[in-house]
Amino acid sequence: MNQVYFDNAATTPIREEVIEVMTQVMKHHYGNASSSHSFGRASKALIEKSRKTIAGYLNVSAGEIIFTSGGTEADNLVLRSAVRDLNVTHIITSKIEHHAILHTSQQLQKEYNISISYVNIDKTGQIDYAHLEKLLDTEKKTLVSLMHVNNEIGNVLDIKRVAIICKTYKALFHSDTVQSVGHFTLDLQEIPIDFLAASAHKFHGPKGVGFVFIRKNSGLKPLIFGGEQERGFRAGTESVHNIVGIGEALRLAYDNLESERSYVQGLKKHFIYRLQKEIPNIYFNGCSGDLEKSTYTLVNVCLPVSAEKSAMLLFQLDLKGIACSKGSACQSGSSQVSHVLAEFLSAEDLQKPSVRFSFSIYNTIEEVDYLISVLISLIQSKE
Amino acid sequence: MNQVYFDNAATTPIREEVIEVMTQVMKHHYGNASSSHSFGRASKALIEKSRKTIAGYLNVSAGEIIFTSGGTEADNLVLRSAVRDLNVTHIITSKIEHHAILHTSQQLQKEYNISISYVNIDKTGQIDYAHLEKLLDTEKKTLVSLMHVNNEIGNVLDIKRVAIICKTYKALFHSDTVQSVGHFTLDLQEIPIDFLAASAHKFHGPKGVGFVFIRKNSGLKPLIFGGEQERGFRAGTESVHNIVGIGEALRLAYDNLESERSYVQGLKKHFIYRLQKEIPNIYFNGCSGDLEKSTYTLVNVCLPVSAEKSAMLLFQLDLKGIACSKGSACQSGSSQVSHVLAEFLSAEDLQKPSVRFSFSIYNTIEEVDYLISVLISLIQSKE
Ligand SMILES: Cc1ncc(COP(=O)(O)O)c(C=O)c1O
Ligand SMILES: Cc1ncc(COP(=O)(O)O)c(C=O)c1O
Repeated sequence: MNQVYFDNAATTPIREEVIEVMTQVMKHHYGNASSSHSFGRASKALIEKSRKTIAGYLNVSAGEIIFTSGGTEADNLVLRSAVRDLNVTHIITSKIEHHAILHTSQQLQKEYNISISYVNIDKTGQIDYAHLEKLLDTEKKTLVSLMHVNNEIGNVLDIKRVAIICKTYKALFHSDTVQSVGHFTLDLQEIPIDFLAASAHKFHGPKGVGFVFIRKNSGLKPLIFGGEQERGFRAGTESVHNIVGIGEALRLAYDNLESERSYVQGLKKHFIYRLQKEIPNIYFNGCSGDLEKSTYTLVNVCLPVSAEKSAMLLFQLDLKGIACSKGSACQSGSSQVSHVLAEFLSAEDLQKPSVRFSFSIYNTIEEVDYLISVLISLIQSKE
Repeated sequence: MNQVYFDNAATTPIREEVIEVMTQVMKHHYGNASSSHSFGRASKALIEKSRKTIAGYLNVSAGEIIFTSGGTEADNLVLRSAVRDLNVTHIITSKIEHHAILHTSQQLQKEYNISISYVNIDKTGQIDYAHLEKLLDTEKKTLVSLMHVNNEIGNVLDIKRVAIICKTYKALFHSDTVQSVGHFTLDLQEIPIDFLAASAHKFHGPKGVGFVFIRKNSGLKPLIFGGEQERGFRAGTESVHNIVGIGEALRLAYDNLESERSYVQGLKKHFIYRLQKEIPNIYFNGCSGDLEKSTYTLVNVCLPVSAEKSAMLLFQLDLKGIACSKGSACQSGSSQVSHVLAEFLSAEDLQKPSVRFSFSIYNTIEEVDYLISVLISLIQSKE
């Protein structure tokens, strides 16, 4: 095998159909969507069509979808404005959130002296709902920010349950759904959530575009000020090709959801089955080995090798042409331990290499078999 | 003529070569630049190459160029962090800046209770340097934000002079150079400026990507928090195709600057010459009729027609297939008077239609002649 890409939780290849429409937009629709002439109106129409498509799949109105430059910006917009404009003085989140939530909350704590509470999680990375309720039992104006699908261990939150709990306690609820939009259906009429963040490049769309769902009359204000684009929620000339790209990517993801999910889940099942059978003492981090409790796209596996071998493992996989991730992509440049795994793995297990393999429709069973053969040979090798 | 695009100050068509490299990146380089495997390193290399290209043209080091989602975000990043992190309590700007500066300053005033001073401008939109110095003569920690090329009237600021004045008074200097980067050379070793903002779609690059120049050791902090992308200055997965696009667009702009400038300036000259000869009582707003004092890409012209005709003029130009702008693009959706022209036109002149025509290498002399014939017929028409 030449090169095998098993890092789809970091980012996914763009679908060819998406590249095609984006290229057409770049060639033929260069008007500024804020211009009132025909070139501008054509761009505006493309943006509104994409917005309507996305709103349709989430069962919200188009005005509740605001395009951003990605999931990180979407998270920042919600958190900052909740604190600055909605008088939130208390954020409840968890220590296994993405840095877009954790670092932003910590920054807001510095700037506004808000308090942050972290809900307890168990040894499999699942949140303690009773503890969440306890934290919500406060006079402080609270925003809960809990992700739907964890990007490192794949755990799926019961987002509806959390939304209902938040509503009961009159707290605002934001969810970083960057790993779930395009992978799971979400009916936001059924889920009483206030905000959510999504990013195109996690579902075969372009990098550098995402959106935030902002429920009507929320009072949220912009992160970026200037022109009146995006109904006044987000200034800056719209990236028309990227916005068309995210709409098309979401449409294809949801229109093919059932068949693609079962294909990708098949790869995961096969991977887990063979690993368990052929590598003794292997185990899965978080809930990622449990098909019910984790997303169908990823497995985070702790490999039974010595500390010395551990250091070289990712490097050796790379040499064999296998792309995967230690911790999340944001950290894989550094050799630091994943802040997510550090929350619930024992000191001993943290010495062992934990690797995230994440799949997409562009992977094959043959690639998975190749991966397993490489893993076995690395584990059994002498040096 | 079918459709003629004279709104290049709102946005420019993307160069074919730029679309081509962007499409190649989308097809073949989908790795997340934060990933340490080969796919990630390939993306990272593309980003760093683009950064180096840009830094080279501006004569700065690569680490001083930070990619953003556009000019608006770049302006927001500088202004917000200057106030929050560099203890700026006073912003000096002018009333004819872009809303990305004006609205952001006003928002910061609300949040941080800073003061804003507006430097006087004369009847041609030029700033009063003596007044600037007077405003700078203060104990307050000050940031000056003055744009290099005005997007509505094309006036060119003596950016080096302002930079030197700011240095003398120990003030920070930011310039919104969105209308000048890619159109004018800037040697930032010669100009002691602290920050500047640029946007690709103004020089035949993609929409939704820009950069901010942040001089080394400035102490600036992010607007968007999360991962460690962009050397910690800007969190969020990088839009690799857009970043490659801006690098390529800037390279082509600067490599062809002399010939393209003279071509575009030729169109402007021809337009001014014929207008002056054939339409009595026409005049040019700001310095836009002066080839020395304004950019070579745009003309803002006040047409001698009645108030009734004025209301329909833009609409009629659109019907004739001519795209142009009343005020700036950000406002052309609304029927409000341009905040820029309102600063120096008389009440009477504000009743007349002022229209901005802006040119690029993709326009032709024939198109300009067509425009003139349409303008003449509209002005002479009875109803
Ligand atoms: C002078 C000026 N500043 C800022 C901007 C905003 O940049 P962007 O369109 O990339 O958000 C524009 C254009 O819209 C502009 O002309
Ligand atoms: C859970 C989660 N949140 C947020 C992000 C950030 O989104 P973006 O890459 O669009 O900045 C990512 C991916 O990097 C993610 O996995």
